[in-house]
Amino acid sequence: MSDERYEVVPIGEVESPLTDAATAPKQGFEGSPEAWLVFDPALLEGLDGIAPGDEVILLTWLHRADRDVLRVHPRDDVSNPMQGVFNTRSADRPNPIGLHQVQIVSIDGGRMLVRNLEALNGTPIVDVKPVLKRA
Amino acid sequence: MSDERYEVVPIGEVESPLTDAATAPKQGFEGSPEAWLVFDPALLEGLDGIAPGDEVILLTWLHRADRDVLRVHPRDDVSNPMQGVFNTRSADRPNPIGLHQVQIVSIDGGRMLVRNLEALNGTPIVDVKPVLKRA
Repeated sequence: MSDERYEVVPIGEVESPLTDAATAPKQGFEGSPEAWLVFDPALLEGLDGIAPGDEVILLTWLHRADRDVLRVHPRDDVSNPMQGVFNTRSADRPNPIGLHQVQIVSIDGGRMLVRNLEALNGTPIVDVKPVLKRA
Repeated sequence: MSDERYEVVPIGEVESPLTDAATAPKQGFEGSPEAWLVFDPALLEGLDGIAPGDEVILLTWLHRADRDVLRVHPRDDVSNPMQGVFNTRSADRPNPIGLHQVQIVSIDGGRMLVRNLEALNGTPIVDVKPVLKRA
């Protein structure tokens, strides 16, 4: 196995009323407020074709995570038996990449208003992808 | 916006008969052969709870990608109008993270046989997550 490392360069940042991990929803569909995705102006061309109403997959870098954790109680609930982090959506994991399916509400230049995002204010955005529909 | 960078440390590697991007399937469900996920032995605890039959989301680092590309013809087909890379699943994008939904066929220690993976042989694995089922 190669021991190469790779560098993630954020493409934008989340602006959200959510600031506290302990009280934020654990999943986007569990009552998240609307939030803004604010993109690096140099990369706006890359967003061409995305339109209000679209469901997209957002990848974030969960920068407050503990990267040394390998086992957790799912949903921070000690009554849930310990699991490997790769069998959970815990933010604590070796590469803390957040995966979120959100819906675009509106677009204003390099800012997109979305619903169903549980990421905290200031979370770096690392990628956006369309939801695939099988033919 | 912060100009922080983050380091991705691969947790494993794909072993697949697929070696040529030009002829490999573009999506996992488009006729991919079975492939092995080979994990770093130091991280096996993190896989606890994953079982054969599970559908999981695999994140990879598409290490052959061109990170400076912002617009592409989807599916490398020039008859498809140019789109922003964030509106496509192109490997070429600022942070070339691959997103794959695969099914675990069998598990042998730190090796998992999966179906529906279009990633090329040698592709670094960066994360594994369960598919969420809404209550």
